[in-house]
Amino acid sequence: MQDREKQLRSELEAARKRLYERLHNGEDPQKAYEEEAWPALLALWREYPQVKGGVARGFDLSVHTLGTSPEATILAILGTRAREVHILHTADTKQHLEKIQKDAGVLVYPRQIDKSNVTTVYQAVEEILPSSREVRVAMDLTSGTKAMTSGLAAAAFFLQRVYSGIQVVYVDSEEFDTTLRRPVPGKEVLIRLPNPYEVLGNFQKLIGGELYQRGEFKSAEEVFREAHRNTGKGEFDLLARLSRAYWSWQVFRFAEAAGALKSLIGELEKDAWISHPLGRSLDTLRGQREGLEAMARLVEQKDLSQKEAVAWLASTLLKRSEETDHLAMAALYAYRALELLLQHLALEAGQNPESPSLGPEEDQAFERTLEELLGEKPRRWERWGLLEILAYLKSKDHPALKGWDLKRLQGVKGALQTRNKLLLVHGLEVPQERSIRQIRGLAYDLVRWLGHRVDVEPVNIS
Amino acid sequence: MQDREKQLRSELEAARKRLYERLHNGEDPQKAYEEEAWPALLALWREYPQVKGGVARGFDLSVHTLGTSPEATILAILGTRAREVHILHTADTKQHLEKIQKDAGVLVYPRQIDKSNVTTVYQAVEEILPSSREVRVAMDLTSGTKAMTSGLAAAAFFLQRVYSGIQVVYVDSEEFDTTLRRPVPGKEVLIRLPNPYEVLGNFQKLIGGELYQRGEFKSAEEVFREAHRNTGKGEFDLLARLSRAYWSWQVFRFAEAAGALKSLIGELEKDAWISHPLGRSLDTLRGQREGLEAMARLVEQKDLSQKEAVAWLASTLLKRSEETDHLAMAALYAYRALELLLQHLALEAGQNPESPSLGPEEDQAFERTLEELLGEKPRRWERWGLLEILAYLKSKDHPALKGWDLKRLQGVKGALQTRNKLLLVHGLEVPQERSIRQIRGLAYDLVRWLGHRVDVEPVNIS
Repeated sequence: MQDREKQLRSELEAARKRLYERLHNGEDPQKAYEEEAWPALLALWREYPQVKGGVARGFDLSVHTLGTSPEATILAILGTRAREVHILHTADTKQHLEKIQKDAGVLVYPRQIDKSNVTTVYQAVEEILPSSREVRVAMDLTSGTKAMTSGLAAAAFFLQRVYSGIQVVYVDSEEFDTTLRRPVPGKEVLIRLPNPYEVLGNFQKLIGGELYQRGEFKSAEEVFREAHRNTGKGEFDLLARLSRAYWSWQVFRFAEAAGALKSLIGELEKDAWISHPLGRSLDTLRGQREGLEAMARLVEQKDLSQKEAVAWLASTLLKRSEETDHLAMAALYAYRALELLLQHLALEAGQNPESPSLGPEEDQAFERTLEELLGEKPRRWERWGLLEILAYLKSKDHPALKGWDLKRLQGVKGALQTRNKLLLVHGLEVPQERSIRQIRGLAYDLVRWLGHRVDVEPVNIS
Repeated sequence: MQDREKQLRSELEAARKRLYERLHNGEDPQKAYEEEAWPALLALWREYPQVKGGVARGFDLSVHTLGTSPEATILAILGTRAREVHILHTADTKQHLEKIQKDAGVLVYPRQIDKSNVTTVYQAVEEILPSSREVRVAMDLTSGTKAMTSGLAAAAFFLQRVYSGIQVVYVDSEEFDTTLRRPVPGKEVLIRLPNPYEVLGNFQKLIGGELYQRGEFKSAEEVFREAHRNTGKGEFDLLARLSRAYWSWQVFRFAEAAGALKSLIGELEKDAWISHPLGRSLDTLRGQREGLEAMARLVEQKDLSQKEAVAWLASTLLKRSEETDHLAMAALYAYRALELLLQHLALEAGQNPESPSLGPEEDQAFERTLEELLGEKPRRWERWGLLEILAYLKSKDHPALKGWDLKRLQGVKGALQTRNKLLLVHGLEVPQERSIRQIRGLAYDLVRWLGHRVDVEPVNIS
């Protein structure tokens, strides 16, 4: 402490002694405070405001609610030292504005509000804040009614979501004197109130959990990472990793997703996490990791005979098809799922749809089925599309298609023929929701027939 | 008012008179209050709690901060009547718990917090709240320090995002007595503090604006609709409509998007909105509406000769390609944009890529160019794909391809050949970011060559 500050503090100490002597003699506390303690306290804060714990410097503006104690507000103004000072006063507390300007030595912008109507506080804050989000603002709730101060805090914490330079502060006291109805002079200190969002992981967990539920895994990951940073709790790290894994899965980065799940499972298997809620989903997560690894291999090796991987990839495509709002996308995913499954079945039956090769009898049966399906003489192509593979499998009486009579296939013929004409393929056709559901129906049948246990649903995190 | 309530009120009136007589005689205010006013006030609130303006009934639990005035907290407990009552007290105010239980006639769950450390308040709230989001909770900030009450309000308003059944309440008074340092007995009333988010459209505008900036138009629309409902301000309705239009555009519902923009433009042309910020973007919006209508016609009529519509649709596809995190999607959009543009140019040059028909000389030139491009003898197909159209246009020295020498085309050959092998088309290939950028580069060149002014960027809303 510098000499000058020591001197001011000892003058305050002396003033306090005189104050308590006068109180002891039964003098009026308010008058005694004003004459003895306040001048010394003001002198100290003018040069050495007592500020603690993370209050910023260099505020562009400050907003203060004003109740019946102007002295506390004056200290807050001296502690925040904003370039522009706004005071929210009531009809009753307007009288203190002059003293505040004189003692704090600043020009203030006054604004009258209703002491019981918090909406007037919100509106004042809204109008005072400039549109620049870079602005540094102190919101001081030292003085005022509950509605005023709680309203200011609520507005400030809310606005911090977009105005990162807002701080909520107030003049606290380490010791309160009930006779004075004030802090013991010299025990005042300006402190910062932290935003509940910053402090409490569980609040962030709720928000992150909502995003996770809605399948917005990237945003969920950000929230959980922030919760981990703020609280240091490892459980949020696990939730962030899980969200990351599901996001990677959504955008078909299967190897990345498998890696993320692998490390997550490794953590969950440790004793430290034995009671983590995700522990209940360990089996599902292990299964999903295997599925993702199978898909990563499928994409890497391009070997369509990998039945399990085909079941997982088709299910992934079908899930995306169901989730998207975008019909053109939904159609694309559904077609690709069905085609993938058919490609697999054709390959298993010994035919590569890229270069099919049939014996004469086989070919006759194939052409006949195709004609029945189309209702007209088919054009023949070098490669097989969806319809050709379907006709081929049907002509071979493939057991996967046992439940599908020709009538059902004819019913979806239109939908199947449309594929190449779709907006996102080679044409301008906008798909119909009904057709997409039909395609998905066929694909789900085939996934079930493959008989692999596939679970593409995100695990429960609450 | 019922007779019984009238009777209790007149007893309170009589008690208040006796109280002020005693004060007038210089008696101790605290003692006089406790003996005269409090019993009558308590009797009234036990049967007829004075509750105003939107406070709910049937709370499952209530949380009260407790400062130096237990009476106010007792009234809040009687006013909220929750099935489970939690009190956040400090080391100093613990002494009041017994009186509270006795006077309010309830068993309370006490929990000690630090009066200056708001984090302890947040933690208490977090632990008291059950995980069910259906719970109805009253958070009462009548009593306690600024840190305690502001902290409770901030936590409560924050939690309302997920717990819709939380209300923030406090006992206000229409008249305060400075001698008593309490409300004038009988003037107390329990009221609700509204959430700043509900009240102030500008706050929601900030949040909605953020979502809009990030291209999350569906969520932005929801926020703006809510702001419109809460504030009744028509400007939010305009922003909601704009967000809706852009969302429809994103999912290729061009006619819907055009309709939404049309009605928005109609509004903006009215005198009432002459100074709305969107007014500055009217020309852009009119242009976008025309573009959307052109795309709607294109999709409806499937006439690829509509140059302007092709430019808009290709630009829309390219924008989506750039925005998505999903590489397989990004590739698909980019390919479709390039193909669409090439389909248009081929058609303009007199060839339908679905059934091309070339004279012998033309065909020779075409085959030669295709061979140069591929570096090998080409296989010929009935329909033309991307590479064939490119080779055809090049063989005709089409001016749109003036800047593209054979070397550049050979450079992207691999990327172009990959299309059918892509994961979302017929194969399992995962596209490379570099290839996608190359494809987009070619497509952007063609859009520029078409020479139509196309602006697919959302207009500025701030």
